[in-house]
Amino acid sequence: MNVNRLQYNELKYNEEGLIPAIIQDVDTREVLMLAWMNRESLTLSFQTKKATFWSRSRNKIWVKGEESGNIQTLVNIYYDCDADTLLVMVKQKGVACHTGSRTCFYRELTEKGETSGE
Amino acid sequence: MNVNRLQYNELKYNEEGLIPAIIQDVDTREVLMLAWMNRESLTLSFQTKKATFWSRSRNKIWVKGEESGNIQTLVNIYYDCDADTLLVMVKQKGVACHTGSRTCFYRELTEKGETSGE
Repeated sequence: MNVNRLQYNELKYNEEGLIPAIIQDVDTREVLMLAWMNRESLTLSFQTKKATFWSRSRNKIWVKGEESGNIQTLVNIYYDCDADTLLVMVKQKGVACHTGSRTCFYRELTEKGETSGE
Repeated sequence: MNVNRLQYNELKYNEEGLIPAIIQDVDTREVLMLAWMNRESLTLSFQTKKATFWSRSRNKIWVKGEESGNIQTLVNIYYDCDADTLLVMVKQKGVACHTGSRTCFYRELTEKGETSGE
């Protein structure tokens, strides 16, 4: 496997060695969640074809869906003009959110208060 | 105008007082960019209906498109299950990226190297 590690270095990770990754459903185009990757989780995502992140709360590598079964199969990854954000296109099995919602962005923020999104 | 400031407080801003905002084109469903908001820019976004951010490089409020004319008209804002990320739906005038691309995510990251996305 020809992983270009130099390219990974050229991505701009923050002071914690992390880069934000926007996860989008390739079929519905819904934005599912925002997670964080380090170099290891990015490499693992490519190698396993399963979206893999760095859990900031548990401080460890986190294969999305490893417990729920709701894995995200990697389709492709884009990076932005500043090389400091990733856009990860996935095929979502089941739902993305631990609340049971398809997407983590199920609530609308309004000037007056919250309204349920679905 | 009835801006619920308590609700803004309930959003989880990072130690710099910022929250990441994913910007999505409401018509094409393209993810356009990731930017950062503080409470002031969030309030301004609602009040002016123009997506307004905090520029971390210039250290000031930044009305998207204020120089280029490529403004983003606010449609609605969602927040995620952890209340630490925003999803901002916009109508994009012109292109989102300062490079001239429609979206900032115009390059694909591959295991072997970069390939142009458009």
